[in-house]
Amino acid sequence: MKQLGLALHTDKYQINMMYAHWINGTHQKKAVFEAYFRKLPFGNGYAVFAGLERIVNYINNLTFHEDEIAFLAEQEEEYDSRFLDELRQFRFYGSISAMKEGAIVFADEPLIRVEGTILEAQLVETALLNFMNYQTLIATKASRIKQVAGDDILLEFGTRRAQEADAAIWGARAAYIAGFHGTSNVLAGAKFGIPAKGTHAHSWVQSFGNEQEAFDRYAAALPDGVTLLVDTFDTLGSGVPHAIKTAKELEARGKKMSAIRLDSGDLSYLSIQARKMLDDAGLSYVKIVASNDLDENTILDLKAQGAQIDTWGVGTQLITASDQPSLGGVYKLVECDIDGTMQPVIKISANPEKVTTPGSKDVYRIISTGSGKAIADYICFPNEDEPREGKRLKLFNPLHPYIRKYVSDYQAIAMLEPVFVEGKQVYELPSLDEIRAYHRSQLEQFWPEYLRKLNPEIYRVNISPKAWEMKQKLIAEHLPPEEA
Amino acid sequence: MKQLGLALHTDKYQINMMYAHWINGTHQKKAVFEAYFRKLPFGNGYAVFAGLERIVNYINNLTFHEDEIAFLAEQEEEYDSRFLDELRQFRFYGSISAMKEGAIVFADEPLIRVEGTILEAQLVETALLNFMNYQTLIATKASRIKQVAGDDILLEFGTRRAQEADAAIWGARAAYIAGFHGTSNVLAGAKFGIPAKGTHAHSWVQSFGNEQEAFDRYAAALPDGVTLLVDTFDTLGSGVPHAIKTAKELEARGKKMSAIRLDSGDLSYLSIQARKMLDDAGLSYVKIVASNDLDENTILDLKAQGAQIDTWGVGTQLITASDQPSLGGVYKLVECDIDGTMQPVIKISANPEKVTTPGSKDVYRIISTGSGKAIADYICFPNEDEPREGKRLKLFNPLHPYIRKYVSDYQAIAMLEPVFVEGKQVYELPSLDEIRAYHRSQLEQFWPEYLRKLNPEIYRVNISPKAWEMKQKLIAEHLPPEEA
Repeated sequence: MKQLGLALHTDKYQINMMYAHWINGTHQKKAVFEAYFRKLPFGNGYAVFAGLERIVNYINNLTFHEDEIAFLAEQEEEYDSRFLDELRQFRFYGSISAMKEGAIVFADEPLIRVEGTILEAQLVETALLNFMNYQTLIATKASRIKQVAGDDILLEFGTRRAQEADAAIWGARAAYIAGFHGTSNVLAGAKFGIPAKGTHAHSWVQSFGNEQEAFDRYAAALPDGVTLLVDTFDTLGSGVPHAIKTAKELEARGKKMSAIRLDSGDLSYLSIQARKMLDDAGLSYVKIVASNDLDENTILDLKAQGAQIDTWGVGTQLITASDQPSLGGVYKLVECDIDGTMQPVIKISANPEKVTTPGSKDVYRIISTGSGKAIADYICFPNEDEPREGKRLKLFNPLHPYIRKYVSDYQAIAMLEPVFVEGKQVYELPSLDEIRAYHRSQLEQFWPEYLRKLNPEIYRVNISPKAWEMKQKLIAEHLPPEEA
Repeated sequence: MKQLGLALHTDKYQINMMYAHWINGTHQKKAVFEAYFRKLPFGNGYAVFAGLERIVNYINNLTFHEDEIAFLAEQEEEYDSRFLDELRQFRFYGSISAMKEGAIVFADEPLIRVEGTILEAQLVETALLNFMNYQTLIATKASRIKQVAGDDILLEFGTRRAQEADAAIWGARAAYIAGFHGTSNVLAGAKFGIPAKGTHAHSWVQSFGNEQEAFDRYAAALPDGVTLLVDTFDTLGSGVPHAIKTAKELEARGKKMSAIRLDSGDLSYLSIQARKMLDDAGLSYVKIVASNDLDENTILDLKAQGAQIDTWGVGTQLITASDQPSLGGVYKLVECDIDGTMQPVIKISANPEKVTTPGSKDVYRIISTGSGKAIADYICFPNEDEPREGKRLKLFNPLHPYIRKYVSDYQAIAMLEPVFVEGKQVYELPSLDEIRAYHRSQLEQFWPEYLRKLNPEIYRVNISPKAWEMKQKLIAEHLPPEEA
């Protein structure tokens, strides 16, 4: 078995550009890249940043093994063997700043900033985007579900429909960051300490032929707090009555059944009827778990209809972010050593939203001193001191100049955290519980209008007047001269 | 770092059921499970089976490490330590038959059949479904794209938008099975021998500030056959003219440019104009590569409009199967030792399509001797000899009895291949080239009507009269008695 790590988990064009820079003698020149997305997913008002722990581990382990070098040596590009020697020595010595996991983030603001040689900064692009895009997408989807579920218990149940193993495991973690309470995936439990939860499948009941016997034996085998799946044959006709009988026998032995689980049919009707049957049997402590292609819309509808569901098992729709299965995060060169000096650079596009904002940038969250709530995110060059010094800021929408306001009485929170400085990890990865707590505190900074599932109020992400002027200047430089 | 393999990549309820069977003394009883899906994805007329290599490796490596046991020991279920000892000894000793990778498959037919103790058959469910569902989904999506692309070159470019690393890598392999020609993912290249392809990014051009210089230096650094990205600033105004100039300089040194790449704007208009510019410059050998959110629909439209595109780079839409990002494959108990004898078992549901078909079953593809084309898939019990012996078969749709026909002059191909027999791998994994060739030969067995992208003819998947009667019998047994 070949030793293949994640060093080759990159696009071929990164290796080709690294090689071309090496041949050209430009591979050591300094570059700054920023990762961001252009559009919030699901029509949501915010996104939940995730993926940083995965990225930190990737960077710390980023070396080329001999099997990987051997593969590169066979490519049609016929890379010079001294370039391959360079890769043998490769370590990431650049600097990375990033949003903290669990942060509330928005479109068009840098989420990860990578500064280093163009060789190393180019290599890491693909994996960084792959990890950030997926985990941020799932954390955001999970956060939408959390918004509608209130204090109900939320379990991530999607492994069998996830897009391969990594998605199942890292997706479970992303959901937990956003407030889910557990996952069915045992590996995610073992790897991250997420509570692993599970009941039994239809096959348990089928394997006994007799539902009552199957329930009784399952309850006898497991300790207190068993959950029984009641829809193998006929939910209200056999499943719930059999579960009630099992619960009563457990009571006689001083034990308590935890819940029944509904996995098909009309969950509103069935849960209301089942609740009544349980209550009539004196089993008001037995909860109802529901699953079956749930998402934030079905959960909201079911709750509005008075469904009696305490715990929601959310699978396919969450783990694949079914209604929008990708976040379009990009990684763009914003500043580069050209002819010996660092210069802001731009990429023009016929689509205005694809024109990049030149220069290395910081992100501040502007919090009103009065309300304690976020007013806007403010993006400016690192040498702009105004937000740090609390000076009056102009918030303006350059496309609609009448939309502008000035803020003075605020606290500016620097959102990008230094994670690596010249190859050394300077950021201690927080525990998952700390990330969850940070995420909750982030949500509290926002008025509920921004957090609404449907048609949320648009939160302001503004760039500083200096950054805007630089962008206009570079656009003008790249336009063809106007005809006379 | 803990040693965590894929043994825990399973749902918690599998472990709970295994434990409950162990406590109950029923963990060694024999069971047969079948994996299948109920609905073809994307409205397609067929699916392309994939995932078997991954599954074979998973089964061969399926053991519990001490770190995994230690995690299970801490669970709230408080598993008996003798159960954990049982897991320490665990190996998969069951039998697995499966479709071959690249096979054309349909809804409601067994794709994987697992026979073994209920303990081992239950454990592997989650991972088998996870691998089969994703890889079959992507191979099917890729096959749709291949159907419209004709002889054009197709490259898989989706890594940065894939749902984490495994999806990028196994998705690239699934696309290759279905006829793609390469991938941008270098790790997929190294792991599977798929050609890894790449050009350069906008950042290459930006890092020089001057597009002409950037092109010239890239072409000088790499050997023959370079591809230049022409849309960093202005595709027709600067990108294509600069690329032409580079190509001419290469010609002067006896080298040839391979292609230009378009990555934004109207690909039809731009490719037609760029083609003309290249041809006018005597560069008719320079190809055009296009990318930008392509899928089978945009490619078909662009080709219908006369777009001059030779190579298609397909990313997000393919690697996430964006229009339907999950295949709903399930794994159902069909036969089980109950009270000492193997018995067919059923799961009833208020949704008729969710009622399972009891009994362990084989799948035959019925090929007309006259045309050499597939007539139907025929599902029957292993002890039904008719298809093997070429006897007259009744093909009938039980819901619409007037739709029936008899076939006599046919060849019956057994589709399920024995892969493991009592824990021993008996199937030699074919090379990727062999899988691709098998897939092409599979497609040739079908009339084009079944392969059409939109509203394909529905291919017959019929169960034998005996299997149908068994299903009706078990349904009747589980219904409540009719009221007088």
